Order: sequence, then C-alpha cells, then structure tokens
Amino acid sequence: MSETVTKVEITTTGKVIQSPCGPIIHGLEDVLVKTTAISDIDGRKGILWYRGYNINDLAKYSNFEETAYLIFNGRLPTRTELESFKSMLAKERDLPDEVVSTIRVLAPRAHPMHVLEAAVAGLAAFDPDINDNSPEANFRKAVRLTAKLPSIIAAHYRFSRKLDYIRPKESLAHSANFLYMMFGQEPDSTSAKAIDLYLVLHIDHEVPASTFATLVSISTWTDLYSAIVSGIATLKGPLHGGANEAAMKQYLEIGSPEKARPYVEKLLGEGKRLMGVGHRVYKAYDPRAKIYKELVRELSQSKGNMTYYNIASEVEAVVLEKLASKGLYPNIDFWSGIAMYLLGIPYEYYTPIFAMSRVVGWSAHAMEYLNQHRLFRPRACYVGPHDVPYVPIEKR
Amino acid sequence: MSETVTKVEITTTGKVIQSPCGPIIHGLEDVLVKTTAISDIDGRKGILWYRGYNINDLAKYSNFEETAYLIFNGRLPTRTELESFKSMLAKERDLPDEVVSTIRVLAPRAHPMHVLEAAVAGLAAFDPDINDNSPEANFRKAVRLTAKLPSIIAAHYRFSRKLDYIRPKESLAHSANFLYMMFGQEPDSTSAKAIDLYLVLHIDHEVPASTFATLVSISTWTDLYSAIVSGIATLKGPLHGGANEAAMKQYLEIGSPEKARPYVEKLLGEGKRLMGVGHRVYKAYDPRAKIYKELVRELSQSKGNMTYYNIASEVEAVVLEKLASKGLYPNIDFWSGIAMYLLGIPYEYYTPIFAMSRVVGWSAHAMEYLNQHRLFRPRACYVGPHDVPYVPIEKR
Ligand SMILES: CC(C)(COP(=O)(O)OP(=O)(O)OC[C@H]1O[C@@H](n2cnc3c(N)ncnc32)[C@H](O)[C@@H]1OP(=O)(O)O)[C@@H](O)C(=O)NCCC(=O)NCCS
Ligand SMILES: CC(C)(COP(=O)(O)OP(=O)(O)OC[C@H]1O[C@@H](n2cnc3c(N)ncnc32)[C@H](O)[C@@H]1OP(=O)(O)O)[C@@H](O)C(=O)NCCC(=O)NCCS
Repeated sequence: MSETVTKVEITTTGKVIQSPCGPIIHGLEDVLVKTTAISDIDGRKGILWYRGYNINDLAKYSNFEETAYLIFNGRLPTRTELESFKSMLAKERDLPDEVVSTIRVLAPRAHPMHVLEAAVAGLAAFDPDINDNSPEANFRKAVRLTAKLPSIIAAHYRFSRKLDYIRPKESLAHSANFLYMMFGQEPDSTSAKAIDLYLVLHIDHEVPASTFATLVSISTWTDLYSAIVSGIATLKGPLHGGANEAAMKQYLEIGSPEKARPYVEKLLGEGKRLMGVGHRVYKAYDPRAKIYKELVRELSQSKGNMTYYNIASEVEAVVLEKLASKGLYPNIDFWSGIAMYLLGIPYEYYTPIFAMSRVVGWSAHAMEYLNQHRLFRPRACYVGPHDVPYVPIEKR
Repeated sequence: MSETVTKVEITTTGKVIQSPCGPIIHGLEDVLVKTTAISDIDGRKGILWYRGYNINDLAKYSNFEETAYLIFNGRLPTRTELESFKSMLAKERDLPDEVVSTIRVLAPRAHPMHVLEAAVAGLAAFDPDINDNSPEANFRKAVRLTAKLPSIIAAHYRFSRKLDYIRPKESLAHSANFLYMMFGQEPDSTSAKAIDLYLVLHIDHEVPASTFATLVSISTWTDLYSAIVSGIATLKGPLHGGANEAAMKQYLEIGSPEKARPYVEKLLGEGKRLMGVGHRVYKAYDPRAKIYKELVRELSQSKGNMTYYNIASEVEAVVLEKLASKGLYPNIDFWSGIAMYLLGIPYEYYTPIFAMSRVVGWSAHAMEYLNQHRLFRPRACYVGPHDVPYVPIEKR
C-alpha cells in the first residue's frame, strides 16, 4: 500500500505540549474540524452571527421558532413557512407513555440532565425515521427533538414534586408552552420573553465541546438521537452548560453586593475559577451576555428584586478590573442564571433549558457534518513501556 | 491582553482540506489529543499492547477481570488483589429497582444500545460518588459501571422476550454471569470463554471515536456516567461498534461460501463498504482479528456449524487479494459476530457486549485525561455570509 505523509501547519493561540510523538495542541484550541455556514464568532470583537445575521438583530426582532427555522434552513421564513414550522413543532410536543413512565420513575432521585439523556435515548425507539440518516429524515428527527425536550424537562419538574404531567397546549408558543407545562398556568409575557430570549441566544455557537461531541458521535453514522444524547451529556459539565447554575450559586453565596469584591478576590487568590467568566473563543465581552444583562436588569426591576443583578454587577466590576487584561470577560452564563432564578426556576433546570435551545444547533451541525463526513479518529501519544513479559499469577 | 500565535506542524497520512481559515485535517487523522499509558497500537505491523503487555499474551493467559485490573492500575494484580477486585465487581452487579423498571418499560421497542444509554444515565442518580470527579471516586464509579453494564444488557434481552429479570450470581465470573443472566443457566466453558476472550480483546484501543467522545465530555468536568453515555452513543454507529452486527448480517445475506466472491465483488464495484474491513490505524491485519478468528474456528467446530466461518474465510480471501494493497484488512468485527451468532446471541446485542468491555477503556482514558485536563473546544471555518440585514416578516 502507498502512504503519503503530509505536513500541515496549524496556527494556535493556545498551549502546545511537546510529546515523544509530536506536538499536542491542548484542548484542540484553534484546530479546525469542519467548515460551517451555521454560525460564526468574532472572538476579538465580540460578535456572533447566526447564518450571517447579527445576534443583536435576532435578539431584538426575532423569536425562538423563527431563529430555529433560520438555523435549520439558512434563511428567514416567509409567514406561511413560519406558521407551518410552528405547527409542526407544536404537534410534536407530547411524549410517548413509555418515556413519560421513564421520567416518572427516575425523577425523584435523578438530576434533570441525566433524565434528559435517558429520555432522549428512550425516545429514539418511537421515531419512525430512527435508522435513516438522510437529510430529510434527520430534519424530521431534529424537529421532533426540539419539540419534545421542553416536555421532558417539565415532566421532570412535575414528577420530582409529586405533581402530574401536564400535556402540551398547541395554541401556545414554544417558550410559553414550556412554562405552562412546568407551572400549570400560562405565563405572563415578561416571563415568556425571558425564556424566549434565552433560547434565541443559546441556539448555536459554532463548535463548543457539546457540539463537538455530537459531531464525533454522528461521524460513526450513529443515529441523531444518540448524537444528541452525547451533546446533552457533555453540556452537563460545569465548564460548559453547567456554568449558569454554578454562577447563580456563587451570587447566592455572596449574598449582598458589598461582599462581592472580597469574595472574588479571595477566590482568585486561591487560584479558583469564577463561574460565568472566560471563554475559549471570546477574548472580549460576550455579545450574548451584553444582551441578556439588559433583560436581567429589566426583569429584576419588574420583579422588584435587584439584589442579584447588583451582586453580579459588583462581580463584573472586579472582573473588568482584574481579569479583562487576560482576555477574561463575563459570558452569557454570568447573567442568565439570575433570570432563571427570578422566574422561580430551580437551579438544576438552568442547564436543561440551555439544552432545549442548543438541540437545534447540535442537530444542524450533525446534518452539516454528514455532508462533509469522515470518522473522527485522532491519536494518543503512548508514553508507557512495551513488551512487558506476562508473569503467571503465582509468581507475582 | 497579550496573545501569542504559535505555528505547529502536524504530520498526517490522511486527507487535508484547504479552507479559507486554514487546513482541516479530515477526521483528525494522526492529530494527537493526549498522552496515554493505557494502550498502544502499531498500525503498520499490526501489534496491540495494553499497558505494555502484548495482546497475544493476554489473550492466551489472562481473562476479563485480570485485564480490567491491568487497564485500571497499570500492572497485573497479585492473587489477593485480583480476588478483592473480582469480589468488588461481583458485589456491584445488581441494578436499582428504578433502573430495572426503566429497562422494562423501554425494552419492548428500544434497541439495546439506546437502553444502555438510558440506563447508564439513570444509574447516575444512585451512585453516591456522582458529583465527585476525584481519581478515587471515579475509580469506584468505573468499577460499578463495569459491573452493571452486563446486567442492563441481560435485562433488556429478558424483558424484550417477556421473561423475568434474573438477579446476578456472585459466585460466577464476569463473563459466565453475563450469559447466566441472559439465558438463565450457567454456560458451558466454551461459551464463557468465547465471551471472555471477546471482552479481553475489546477492553481498550487507544482513542477511537467512542473513547474520544468520552474525553470530549469529561473535559467539561461532566460526571463519569454522562461521559460513558457519550461513549455508548458513539459506539453505536456502524462505522465503529456497530460493524460486528453489520458484518454478520452480510454473511447471512451471502448464505453460502461459493456466493461470497461475487457478493463482495458486486459490493465493491458499487463503491460500497464491506463491514468488518478497514481501520483508521491498522494498515495490516488487526491482531485481535487474528486471535478471534482462531476462536471462531474452534467454536464453529464444536457447534458443528462451519458455514459462517467458511463464508467469512472466502470473503477474507477476496479482501486479501483486492483490498490489502490499499491497507484494508479484516478487523476484529469481521470475525466476532460469528461467535456471537453461534452462541445464540441476537445481533442487536453484539455492540452492547462490545460496550460491556470498552467501558473499562473509556473510564481509564477519562481518568487519565482529568490529569492532563483541558476543555476540548476546536473551531469550525465559517464559509457563509456576514451582516445579512434582518427583513421584517411582512416584507419577505
Ligand atoms: C470557559 C473556559 C473553560 C475556557 O477555558 P480555556 O480556554 O481552556 O482557558 P484555560 O483553562 O486555558 O485558562 C486560561 C487562563 O485563564 C484562567 N481562567 C480561565 N477561566 C477563568 C475563570 N473563569 N476564572 C478565573 N480564571 C480563569 C485560567 O486559570 C488560566 O490561567 P493561567 O494561564 O494563569 O493558568 C474557562 O474560561 C472557564 O473555566 N470558565 C468558567 C466556566 C464558564 O463560565 N463556562 C461557560 C463558558 S460559556
Ligand atoms: C473503519 C473505517 C471507518 C476507517 O475509515 P477511514 O480511516 O476514515 O477511511 P476512509 O473513509 O478515508 O477510507 C479510505 C479508503 O478506503 C476505502 N475503504 C475504507 N473502508 C472500506 C471498507 N470497509 N470497504 C471498502 N472500502 C473501504 C474508502 O472507500 C476509501 O477509498 P477511496 O480513498 O478510494 O475513497 C472504514 O475502514 C470503514 O468504514 N470500515 C467498515 C466499518 C468497520 O468495519 N468498522 C469497524 C472498525 S474496527
């Protein structure tokens, strides 16, 4: 067999570890794994585009359903297209009884992210397209998953509180229906807007760890449900989706604005990480965080509780003073937990709600990768011994 | 902030795609993502070592429990250490009632790989160490997972046939207990050996897609259960763990040895892939395949059914004649499905049994990576438009 060795030069701003086998680019920083037309980040200027649209415009004028359509189809829908997409989503919300039972059995003990993994895996069996990896079938699966994730999360909330599962209401928009399925009453428009904007801001973000895990999975031609399960399992980590929950817990620990500075200084002094701060790509203020900070301010005013907004603002001041010079700024998770808190959503649901939105980006990236497919199979550099002789147990 | 750009030269034998942002090494071929002391592959000579031990020695002298100990601890156990490790494993086999219920509810419709994903996610809630990512806690979790995976698979088998769950028997070895929990009787030694050798040969393989997905997950500091769920979800694909099932189905479709050559020639002529053939790293005969081929021959003789061994041997002849020059040889999946078939194990359990073994490698790599940790966060090259103006829906 003929085998040609190619030398490829990769440019990285990250850490490079020299190993006996060659360089390791730690965490694959700046390594390109695919092309994409879904989203783009300018990390230096702090700009995010979905399909070429600036996130600021979408945050101002759009909503979850329209933005999801955009991510999937590459352009904004006409009114007819949007109505038909919304009704597809609305019709697919309900869960099969077996999946409801699974959630009921696990909810009393399990973290909702684990239940989300389990329920999505369980749902796979009920999708007639499960073994078809064509773009059309995967699109249908992506729509079903997008429709059903809120129902799983709401069901977990209900069952873990010994409440009944509430069936979805087709007449409600995606975000409003989710709050309705959680709390049993139709939300006011401020609350629905807080969730909807959160979803718009989280729908895609190029290839963070969870999206990358989805890609690694789908590269084996596994089914889309399994690939999404990998995304959920990866998002759960506190360095990724779990950061919103962790950031809110920090503010609660701080307790009042004047305690913020000493808390942060102590934490940084101990070499610990401040949650909701820093990003592999943004070396500027996260544009999503800027947008959501405004919403948090308004929501705090309308709820008459400025405490956490004020605490976070104090923390932000210390971050801008001490960390910005190192390229560390507040990210979206810095602010988003506060909104969830004010809406009465318990911490453990913050990351699941992130997943509710990102499922769109995960699916879109998986479909995109199948068109430029190759199995992901990197290497490790072996640093141990070779040809160790096997000694029988009686001689060890 | 200061930011230094480093140029890194990477050597690959694979495809490099030029993108506007720089080179993409397709499928990350030859890209190093970590160091490891767990296993090593010489792809050119066809050699595999676990912790420095040649796979041929371990296949001949060792067994699953001892090899698992080796993978976890880096050396072979003394007799006392082995006994205590075996008893840890044996004691951890049973499943919580809630997880048994989950499997019961899903089994009638769901593929066992989906149920494995769901059940492992569900098990997380019952592990007292779930939120502790220390090496000690992760080792305990890894042992529990290794002990429980066979029980999940056997439970799926039983429930999908309207049979009762059989509780594990502590007195049996890992492989024998698995067959006992599947079929309700203690297996003969040939059958137990066939499973045990399969497990030894699959326990680790450096960083294939499923192990890599596990690493990407754990790099967010997610919990080990979730990271293993990613591994399972990724292994499911037919280009990876799913290949053993696919290869056996090919032999059944071929039907008799004389039909093998025309079948393969037709398939290759159509540009399709032969399942059980080819490997990203091996450009020689997979050493695991050589070992398992022998077992399949013996098992076929003892079962008095040489048909599939003979069909596969004919296929092998065509592969060696037509594909070996391109570096494509039979891999372990080429042979392993036949043994499973002769043991009366339905196809859909071949990949789960692979997972039963690889869970050891996944866990060991996850723990190893936490000691050289950095978040995996590569980049995609954006190839779409920028700053598309938002047009209100009534004007579209
Ligand atoms: C997101 C994150 C994982 C990206 O990390 P990364 O690109 O791998 O960065 P590194 O781990 O290489 O860190 C680079 C430096 O910044 C420091 N740093 C990074 N994030 C930090 C934080 N949140 N608080 C304090 N210091 C931080 C690191 O300690 C390191 O310092 P050093 O060079 O002196 O060792 C990281 O910023 C982080 O852990 N943030 C907190 C979790 C979070 O908010 N995640 C949500 C992201 S949307
Ligand atoms: C394992 C596998 C995914 C590795 O693939 P890879 O390193 O990404 O290889 P590529 O997809 O780049 O293939 C390289 C060439 O070999 C060919 N090839 C690879 N595997 C082949 C197979 N099983 N049958 C026929 N041709 C094959 C490809 O078509 C390609 O040919 P081309 O260069 O003319 O286009 C691949 O060999 C495969 O699909 N095998 C079948 C599934 C299998 O047995 N998996 C279990 C592995 S343990």
